[in-house]
Amino acid sequence: MQNLTSAPELIVSKWLNRSPLSLESLRGKVVMVVAFQMLCPGCVSEAIPQAKKIFASFPENDLALIGLHTVFEHHAAMQEVSLKAFLHEYRIAFPVAIDMPSENHPIPQTMALYQMQGTPTTLLIDREGKLRTQQFGHIPDLLIGAELMKLILEKQG
Amino acid sequence: MQNLTSAPELIVSKWLNRSPLSLESLRGKVVMVVAFQMLCPGCVSEAIPQAKKIFASFPENDLALIGLHTVFEHHAAMQEVSLKAFLHEYRIAFPVAIDMPSENHPIPQTMALYQMQGTPTTLLIDREGKLRTQQFGHIPDLLIGAELMKLILEKQG
Amino acid sequence: MQNLTSAPELIVSKWLNRSPLSLESLRGKVVMVVAFQMLCPGCVSEAIPQAKKIFASFPENDLALIGLHTVFEHHAAMQEVSLKAFLHEYRIAFPVAIDMPSENHPIPQTMALYQMQGTPTTLLIDREGKLRTQQFGHIPDLLIGAELMKLILEKQG
Amino acid sequence: MQNLTSAPELIVSKWLNRSPLSLESLRGKVVMVVAFQMLCPGCVSEAIPQAKKIFASFPENDLALIGLHTVFEHHAAMQEVSLKAFLHEYRIAFPVAIDMPSENHPIPQTMALYQMQGTPTTLLIDREGKLRTQQFGHIPDLLIGAELMKLILEKQG
Repeated sequence: MQNLTSAPELIVSKWLNRSPLSLESLRGKVVMVVAFQMLCPGCVSEAIPQAKKIFASFPENDLALIGLHTVFEHHAAMQEVSLKAFLHEYRIAFPVAIDMPSENHPIPQTMALYQMQGTPTTLLIDREGKLRTQQFGHIPDLLIGAELMKLILEKQG
Repeated sequence: MQNLTSAPELIVSKWLNRSPLSLESLRGKVVMVVAFQMLCPGCVSEAIPQAKKIFASFPENDLALIGLHTVFEHHAAMQEVSLKAFLHEYRIAFPVAIDMPSENHPIPQTMALYQMQGTPTTLLIDREGKLRTQQFGHIPDLLIGAELMKLILEKQG
Repeated sequence: MQNLTSAPELIVSKWLNRSPLSLESLRGKVVMVVAFQMLCPGCVSEAIPQAKKIFASFPENDLALIGLHTVFEHHAAMQEVSLKAFLHEYRIAFPVAIDMPSENHPIPQTMALYQMQGTPTTLLIDREGKLRTQQFGHIPDLLIGAELMKLILEKQG
Repeated sequence: MQNLTSAPELIVSKWLNRSPLSLESLRGKVVMVVAFQMLCPGCVSEAIPQAKKIFASFPENDLALIGLHTVFEHHAAMQEVSLKAFLHEYRIAFPVAIDMPSENHPIPQTMALYQMQGTPTTLLIDREGKLRTQQFGHIPDLLIGAELMKLILEKQG
């Protein structure tokens, strides 16, 4: 049974750095999704380095970190082949999902479903699968560290 | 009654930015003590800015932040009059305690009591008054944010 | 007549941000060429921001700044369509030349001609067309500022 | 004979890091004076690190770098004993002059003579002793590097 406020599943065309997974399968862990574009300067200078630090700092048993490549502009410039090189050059080891393109408009399907305003956007999902935080733009390390710990310490209901 | 592992009281010659307080009186709150020297470059570039962010980010009901000026070198250079100007110029609004000088050696009394290795040193004390973390050197924002939240979420026994 | 130590012409498959130009046509100006790859982290975090500052700080009459996209790895990832989006997103307004791919090996033709060791590489060419500096890796702002001024102040022979 | 536009001599109560010197004695070299206060945050975070880089980058035969401690506030906080500890802790090896206090007002004598507006202030004096640049606030490395080289390349008249 899915709670009404549960984070809806990501709609993904391809997974990089690992085999496909679902939010459902991560139930019991905290999940952080960082939606980014490889040619978004704020993502490259802030969100990606922060995500790498988070991935290195919290145990995978507690926190699942997912990059979501939500291309909503310059689509031809950020195809899978370019994204793969980006992940290699920036030493990104966490799972990255490619947001499924929409048929008739530039915003990909997960981005539209979550009504994201741009990149980077951070989603924090609790152990029960509920979306607890959705924020567009940079979240300072101090605050995201505190928020992640808060969610990690929650018992699963 | 004081637990054997309770953080011992700070030994203070003077309080700046507020009237005297004791760790005892802060029981029920998490307490962070940042031991620094006003002429320690790492304190000025990292520990002080971090402490200011923490002071601005967590509610005072949950977290009491205390600066501890632990002068163990260049004593004549870092007297109260200089420290006051430093607090003013660096816009430090949280309480600052001056560690009581020792009579026969350069290390001040609280610094000696806690066997601190240098500045900056960060102490994290839980709601029950127990010393949970003591670390010399810089703690990344991500980790101290997580650790503070963990202590804040603990119920008082 | 071309001096033996003159900087050899760039071998370019396409010019972006302007119509084709040659080093020959820039004789009389100082020329700075910054060889980069759009997916090279050190280029993105240091060399490109520095080039933008230089472009904004020195008059075009004195200094011609050229970006040279020298793709020697991940070729499929850094095609023209991706580079164009990169230039747009990173607000790069100076001329950018795409180094001509080689037929039989990954290193493009200008990069091979100059025997560059990687990206970023900076070339400084004087008003007479002579290559005066070729450096792989970051050059501090203080030093490149001084070196550029030195070349700018030289009279053309 | 002193040119009308020559930089007036610094009025100094004491020299640290070296024996007393005069601008007159430095005629033939470019002179950079960085006026600072040890408790001025912008001086500590930007002007002092820049001065250290400049001191390490240009030959002493061409450029004489002088720190000028222009205390115009918190006088009791920034006495010689504190300044000496500051120079030690921040590894400042270039000559530092203490601006002579004024008798009846807080602004010291050299600062008043040059009508400086605050700290940091940078003075650039050419090989003939003329004041060529006086700027309050931060000068980017790129620009000061260029300006210093320009002055260094000038022949002495």
